[in-house]
Amino acid sequence: MFSGAQISLYPMSDDFVGIILKAIKALDPYRPHFRIETDDVSTLIAGPPEQLFPAMRDLFVAAAQSGVHCTLSAAVSRGCPGEPDSPLCTPQTDMPDLPLLQRIGAAREAVTLAPRTGQVIAAQFSLYPLGVGHHMDEIYGCIDFLKSSGVFDRAKNFCTRLAGDAGPVFATLSEAFLRFGAPEGHVALDLTVSANSPSPNAPR
Amino acid sequence: MFSGAQISLYPMSDDFVGIILKAIKALDPYRPHFRIETDDVSTLIAGPPEQLFPAMRDLFVAAAQSGVHCTLSAAVSRGCPGEPDSPLCTPQTDMPDLPLLQRIGAAREAVTLAPRTGQVIAAQFSLYPLGVGHHMDEIYGCIDFLKSSGVFDRAKNFCTRLAGDAGPVFATLSEAFLRFGAPEGHVALDLTVSANSPSPNAPR
Repeated sequence: MFSGAQISLYPMSDDFVGIILKAIKALDPYRPHFRIETDDVSTLIAGPPEQLFPAMRDLFVAAAQSGVHCTLSAAVSRGCPGEPDSPLCTPQTDMPDLPLLQRIGAAREAVTLAPRTGQVIAAQFSLYPLGVGHHMDEIYGCIDFLKSSGVFDRAKNFCTRLAGDAGPVFATLSEAFLRFGAPEGHVALDLTVSANSPSPNAPR
Repeated sequence: MFSGAQISLYPMSDDFVGIILKAIKALDPYRPHFRIETDDVSTLIAGPPEQLFPAMRDLFVAAAQSGVHCTLSAAVSRGCPGEPDSPLCTPQTDMPDLPLLQRIGAAREAVTLAPRTGQVIAAQFSLYPLGVGHHMDEIYGCIDFLKSSGVFDRAKNFCTRLAGDAGPVFATLSEAFLRFGAPEGHVALDLTVSANSPSPNAPR
């Protein structure tokens, strides 16, 4: 099993380097669990699948608290058959192979327990369960969960938009990633998160 | 058939609004072919699959020519069974269902014809052929093409990195999107493009 994300943090400011360098300190508590590699386009975090979204939440909230319009973009993946197995990526909890309806309930329950951060954000994402013949069943099941997550904003072409406190929003993203698609299967998630945008939240 | 992309342009500058508003004029020639909708997180461009990457290229090059560190992030999709058919998205060219080896050759040939822009960029992307039992065959075939595209930089976890002139780089991305995965199948592509980064291009 291999799991991780290629993440990029974009502060729309002349001081983008300073904001990024300050925000990445939020990753310090995760460093013992992760392999982290940075180049000019993105930073790889590879580690336990349950830790990926909490790490991205803390990184993004730290940047957003600058008050500057910031976004975070991530390609998140688990179970890719082309990646080497890594003990670092061993799941920390058992995720039993339950029927879709029970997974929807368990995901919803987990989001209600999410800590709040005080930072309001918008997020949009696409979930790709790969190598499954009926991938749309998993996607539609995930959408049912999202609609009852408390942070569902609206469906858009190719993706779903969430909005609210970063705590439940990232918890919802994590549940979507962990519980939909086969437990040992290949699942990818394409994520964009935004805070402090000067644009209004309305389709134009 | 429905095809399009949710795209976001991120200039790392206090003047990000000005740079974006100037760059989006580069989309004007494409407007007659596209449905375009903007909100605070991304802009949808829906239209013929062959036009998506040329439109993103022109938008990104216009922004990058500001000299500011800019990135573009996009979730590109064709053939999603959850999207409505749209005559706007009718492919402009026949893309015959050839064996993998012939598609690799045709893709390589198309890239050699790509116009150059004078703008050097880095790009990384993941290709997701959905609902196909042997999705890794298509991915490995696509990687063979990428390695001979002339703009291949290196493999990274979860994605491939390209670098070079924006012309052949976006042509390579377009060929990967159009020719791999079933011709009428559901294919998604997660893209990040970067220019004028102050960081060196080396894994750290």
